[in-house]
Amino acid sequence: MVSPLAVPLPALPPVAGVRLAAAAAGIRYVGRTDLVLAEFAAGTSVAGVFTRNRCPGAPVDWCRAALVGGAARALVVNAGNANVFTGAAGQVSTRATAVAAASVAGCVPGEVFLASTGVIGEVLPHERIVAALPGLHASLADDAWEQAARGIMTTDTFPKASTRTAMLGGSSVRVTGIAKGSGMIAPDMATLLCFVFTDAAVPAVTLQKLLRAGVDLSFNRITVDSDTSTSDTVLLFATGEAGNAPEADVAAFGAALNEVLLDLALQVVRDGEGAQKLIRIDVTGAVDDRSARRVALSVANSPLVKTAVAGEDANWGRIVMAVGKAGEPADRDRLSVGVGGVWMAREGSVVPGYDEAPVVAHMRGREIVIAIDLGLGGGHDTAWTCDLTHGYIDINGSYRS
Amino acid sequence: MVSPLAVPLPALPPVAGVRLAAAAAGIRYVGRTDLVLAEFAAGTSVAGVFTRNRCPGAPVDWCRAALVGGAARALVVNAGNANVFTGAAGQVSTRATAVAAASVAGCVPGEVFLASTGVIGEVLPHERIVAALPGLHASLADDAWEQAARGIMTTDTFPKASTRTAMLGGSSVRVTGIAKGSGMIAPDMATLLCFVFTDAAVPAVTLQKLLRAGVDLSFNRITVDSDTSTSDTVLLFATGEAGNAPEADVAAFGAALNEVLLDLALQVVRDGEGAQKLIRIDVTGAVDDRSARRVALSVANSPLVKTAVAGEDANWGRIVMAVGKAGEPADRDRLSVGVGGVWMAREGSVVPGYDEAPVVAHMRGREIVIAIDLGLGGGHDTAWTCDLTHGYIDINGSYRS
Repeated sequence: MVSPLAVPLPALPPVAGVRLAAAAAGIRYVGRTDLVLAEFAAGTSVAGVFTRNRCPGAPVDWCRAALVGGAARALVVNAGNANVFTGAAGQVSTRATAVAAASVAGCVPGEVFLASTGVIGEVLPHERIVAALPGLHASLADDAWEQAARGIMTTDTFPKASTRTAMLGGSSVRVTGIAKGSGMIAPDMATLLCFVFTDAAVPAVTLQKLLRAGVDLSFNRITVDSDTSTSDTVLLFATGEAGNAPEADVAAFGAALNEVLLDLALQVVRDGEGAQKLIRIDVTGAVDDRSARRVALSVANSPLVKTAVAGEDANWGRIVMAVGKAGEPADRDRLSVGVGGVWMAREGSVVPGYDEAPVVAHMRGREIVIAIDLGLGGGHDTAWTCDLTHGYIDINGSYRS
Repeated sequence: MVSPLAVPLPALPPVAGVRLAAAAAGIRYVGRTDLVLAEFAAGTSVAGVFTRNRCPGAPVDWCRAALVGGAARALVVNAGNANVFTGAAGQVSTRATAVAAASVAGCVPGEVFLASTGVIGEVLPHERIVAALPGLHASLADDAWEQAARGIMTTDTFPKASTRTAMLGGSSVRVTGIAKGSGMIAPDMATLLCFVFTDAAVPAVTLQKLLRAGVDLSFNRITVDSDTSTSDTVLLFATGEAGNAPEADVAAFGAALNEVLLDLALQVVRDGEGAQKLIRIDVTGAVDDRSARRVALSVANSPLVKTAVAGEDANWGRIVMAVGKAGEPADRDRLSVGVGGVWMAREGSVVPGYDEAPVVAHMRGREIVIAIDLGLGGGHDTAWTCDLTHGYIDINGSYRS
């Protein structure tokens, strides 16, 4: 069943220097695509941001090492097996996959990037990937975006993509991303994968700086259940085919990149396990932005706030609790809490006789906005999450068959 | 419906110098007790530990201030209204209640301790408490333990108490505690209250040291949903009526206190919202104890681990994820994970052909033990939690009527 918060796939024009293909390699699923290959033009630079989990999967180790070279010619993504906690066999699989992909793409293994999501603790049957790669390579096309967006899905309920253009060094460049996340395969956890492609010419060092900043404004401000996957990976590939002047002012490009990343991050929340509502938490009046962010994420991660939203209950008492538990500077008697543009509590106590009708109507909607003003300073930030519903328990707590 | 993890109330002999009474004051509930008074002999010393939430309720502020005096003659606890986020009115209520209780107990208001749980943001109708106090005082008795344990409940499904004896300064002393927690009243969150009474003579400074250490070993090692109430309060009253020599070796007394606190803490987890299983997480092999504790709590707070246990799924992949997200030193290739005494994964990969039968049987039980060995050092610790079930969503996400 598709999430009620799903958005349609946008039109996705080609990105010069990027070709894609997807196939059913039978890694775990039957009768659906589970393997995606992307090939990049010579000269493509790459940046990456990975999970902070201390027990990362073998593909994350591989990408971190490959990133040192700063150059990319191919990306291989499989669904159904995460290649996590597989010991030495995990490294054998990543190397074998990269060598095979390098062979079809005509590059060195260090220019191949890898990502896997799915079951944990089972050896990845990389021979199926290796066997499928020549056929995949033969079918590469510049318009296979939907196939690629679907091919990386696990139990995502809709494919996720976003695209923007920007002017860079006198040329129009395109930034297109696909992502998967918040689905899961027993016995596994939701994992975020995001791949962004641009025809812009941007050196790897600049690309890395832009990607880190963009992820910080997007994927690092969303949460579904506070659990951190062992496989989270965001990669950005820049083919340079747009022919723009290198080292030009990258502000507009960075802005377009940030929009694509935020759009994809919110699509992941919209597909959060069991999600019925998208929740935005705006924090103002904090002592600084960092403090605002911690308060926003504390509210976003509170099971009691998330269940209240699921129940369409504008429960500002739980919001106060979640603000207080963040451990950041907060003064109960200066704190204001609002929902849907109506302040329910101001400066330490409930607003007597506030108009509940618009609040009730807002809580019945699909997109909920919570406003928190700490009344202490000029710090502000925003986080996004989804509600916590029976659907989450159904997906993650179903009895093993 | 009583929690399937409930334990029966133990026999609770009197504690010299402590008298208790409970009554229905109509604070919010109809037809049930919601007000408890305890009176202590002259010379009673007191210690307290409170929520770290930055937006505490007015009674927490009151107790923190009163604690400076180190002496207690009365305790007033109400259920149904938390007196949280009530602005200046909250302070008016705490003062009026303390003054009225001091009047019936024949002490000063600073020797009265207060605790409230229930609805947030509504002014506490303290005049109902004030009106009920004389009648409550007239009915004080030394055997009203069950009434007191029931009178502090909100939506707890069973009353919680524990008692031990210890030798102190040549005398046998008794330590008896009652607690409530993990129930909730819309729109409110679960709150922990715990009151421990002893006839031992122990100076307030020593008492505070012992209580802080005991809470650290018990209530600070449990979690139901990672949310921190604005009202959490643990108070320890020592009447001195046992006549033991003061300043004697308090090790045995401290051990008895710790047992009472841990027993009560586990009863709170057993009554966790929607709990069907009690989960113990033993971490060994960490670089130090502090690190082990953070790993244990990371696993205990993971929604994906807790839903897996609810589904009776010995999902060690999710346990690995939760270990890794703690941010503590961990080496994937030295990590071992077991359930119910069976190692499923050792030193970085699954144990080939491990015997699943005892694991499956263990997961079907009520008390689940997860073992994690980090393989790095001698640090170890334990945390407790409950599973995350549809019951939690039912209780906290029910639509407002």
